[in-house]
Amino acid sequence: MAYRIGVIGGGQLARMMVPPAIHLGLDIRVLAETEGSSARLAATQVGDYHEVETVLAFARDVDAVTFDHEHVPQDVLRALVDAGVAVHPSPEALAVAQDKIVMRRRLSELGLPVPDWAAVRDAEALGRFLAEHGGSAVVKTARGGYDGKGVRVVREADGADDWFADLADGEALLVEELVDFRRELAQSVARRPSGQIVAWPLVESVQSDGVCAEVIAPAPKSAGRLAEAAEAIARTVAERLGVTGVLAVELFETDDDRLLINELAMRPHNTGHWTIDGSTTSQFEQHLRAVLDLPLGDTRPHDAWSVMVNVLGGPEAGTLAERLPALMADHPSVKVHDYGKDPRPGRKVGHVTATGDDLDEATYRARAGAAFFEG
Amino acid sequence: MAYRIGVIGGGQLARMMVPPAIHLGLDIRVLAETEGSSARLAATQVGDYHEVETVLAFARDVDAVTFDHEHVPQDVLRALVDAGVAVHPSPEALAVAQDKIVMRRRLSELGLPVPDWAAVRDAEALGRFLAEHGGSAVVKTARGGYDGKGVRVVREADGADDWFADLADGEALLVEELVDFRRELAQSVARRPSGQIVAWPLVESVQSDGVCAEVIAPAPKSAGRLAEAAEAIARTVAERLGVTGVLAVELFETDDDRLLINELAMRPHNTGHWTIDGSTTSQFEQHLRAVLDLPLGDTRPHDAWSVMVNVLGGPEAGTLAERLPALMADHPSVKVHDYGKDPRPGRKVGHVTATGDDLDEATYRARAGAAFFEG
Repeated sequence: MAYRIGVIGGGQLARMMVPPAIHLGLDIRVLAETEGSSARLAATQVGDYHEVETVLAFARDVDAVTFDHEHVPQDVLRALVDAGVAVHPSPEALAVAQDKIVMRRRLSELGLPVPDWAAVRDAEALGRFLAEHGGSAVVKTARGGYDGKGVRVVREADGADDWFADLADGEALLVEELVDFRRELAQSVARRPSGQIVAWPLVESVQSDGVCAEVIAPAPKSAGRLAEAAEAIARTVAERLGVTGVLAVELFETDDDRLLINELAMRPHNTGHWTIDGSTTSQFEQHLRAVLDLPLGDTRPHDAWSVMVNVLGGPEAGTLAERLPALMADHPSVKVHDYGKDPRPGRKVGHVTATGDDLDEATYRARAGAAFFEG
Repeated sequence: MAYRIGVIGGGQLARMMVPPAIHLGLDIRVLAETEGSSARLAATQVGDYHEVETVLAFARDVDAVTFDHEHVPQDVLRALVDAGVAVHPSPEALAVAQDKIVMRRRLSELGLPVPDWAAVRDAEALGRFLAEHGGSAVVKTARGGYDGKGVRVVREADGADDWFADLADGEALLVEELVDFRRELAQSVARRPSGQIVAWPLVESVQSDGVCAEVIAPAPKSAGRLAEAAEAIARTVAERLGVTGVLAVELFETDDDRLLINELAMRPHNTGHWTIDGSTTSQFEQHLRAVLDLPLGDTRPHDAWSVMVNVLGGPEAGTLAERLPALMADHPSVKVHDYGKDPRPGRKVGHVTATGDDLDEATYRARAGAAFFEG
């Protein structure tokens, strides 16, 4: 009997779990939000993941449930666990990824390096934090932010008044010091429920307007102590928070040579897409193995360098397919990933990856490939 | 609008076309013979490919039709072409792959190296061929043979009487010289309708009981003239027969250092499965690109060596999934491919691939990995 895996959410992360499921002979089923989702080929059900009954019905005869995103409410997650479903990552682990204030608190308790932070409920508290941190800070909504949304740099105490006005009772905003960083890094690991952990190389993530634009694997000049420190941080997070599946830890490398944790994602992550074409075991295959508690695969890169460039949607539909022939003709070694999504300005609709012995050359190919899909 | 590709036949070759279709954003649809076929995830229709109406309905709104196997009857293929469907490979090319006597005749006409052969209709003709070729020969049914079926070594004129008795009017058996060969090789190429051709490295195919058991890429000691000769043969076959998509040419390397064509396959082929994990562009992605007339991808191997070992089914169902954890634990770098088929003795139900810098070590890992799935 094949292993049966249920994925809640039909976005591109669920979509990219399908190829390794096919190769490994896993029976993959997706609970999608809409018809025509990115993961439609494996969608066995369309429904609302906020509804306990819908999710319970979906999960009835699978060996494990996992996620395309972190937005499934805790009551739904708890109902799954109560019904005896193996949920990976667990509700307890996901709670930390779902709320940035909970995340900062837990990481601080574990003694892990994070930017200075506070939970603030009004302009007065924000003003005090600004005064203590040189007059500028980053304010983030605790929940629901992604790709630069729900994140704002403020320099005045009233700079987040609109968000304060929207807070419900007991809610707060996260305020953090504006870190002077040299670059952003990301460390992905995978952990099985039974404890095994493997790590991919540390990567560099180049952001543009708060969105990951480009990933270089491994991060240049990261061999030795930097890579060891990043891996140690990610292993500690995975173990101490009990994360199962893939965990991506976004890090700042500060101007004064420290590593600070920026964000956590408990699922395959944009900074790990290079592994599809660049590593013996992709993050998507690894995630499936981990959440089914199967032994983890080798994370060795195929080439010295892998460079992934995101494709952000323009105003017109169908542009990726139209431009595919020209890209393929000019760049026969670039790997194209089209998420099958309707393009909207700024929406991640695909990515391309180039690998090779020379970083400049691989970067050129990846950027040139992605440029074919631009407006 | 995404490219739409229709695949006739729901076996493992169609199944393995699905992952690259997902990555490239192609809309792939499979006409499967049965519910629960190997390619079931992409099966949009279950029907009989011998029926013109069924196949025409399936092909109505796709950009190209291609195949999991070579068994679609010529009248069905012609009806598709008459209806304006792009069929790749074409009926004319497929006719050569569908009938071994037609194949031998065309290859001989093209001056390509083949074993001595004749079309024989009775024991007397077979006896004459045996007398001229040292008393032994290989007899093959012209149609329907695969994996050692429909192939027999004969040493007596009456050795194929049962097959002669079954011949319809106008039919014949193929008889060939028993070639003294050092080893079997296979050369895969892909060709677009507009003419572009790319080749993968020449590989060695190790047979067991007439079935491909193991493939080594590249074929050891094949650099230089041997590889050039094999590629030239495959390019000539592809061009002169007008093959579109992937073409695999099985070759004998004779004891006296000649290359002779053994078989042709006009589709992804068992000897090219290593490309999924071992080459920048897999034969399955390349086949989709070729039949859609998209520019072809780079065929560079990831590693010095790739070794693929087939998994043949034993008597029990579900054994692959049961044994997956032990295999994964012992061999984290071995790539597993489970075709999702009910095992039957001798049936190809999966394969494993190992890659690396050292041939002996990669061979060990691939064989050891496959051994977990054995009886």
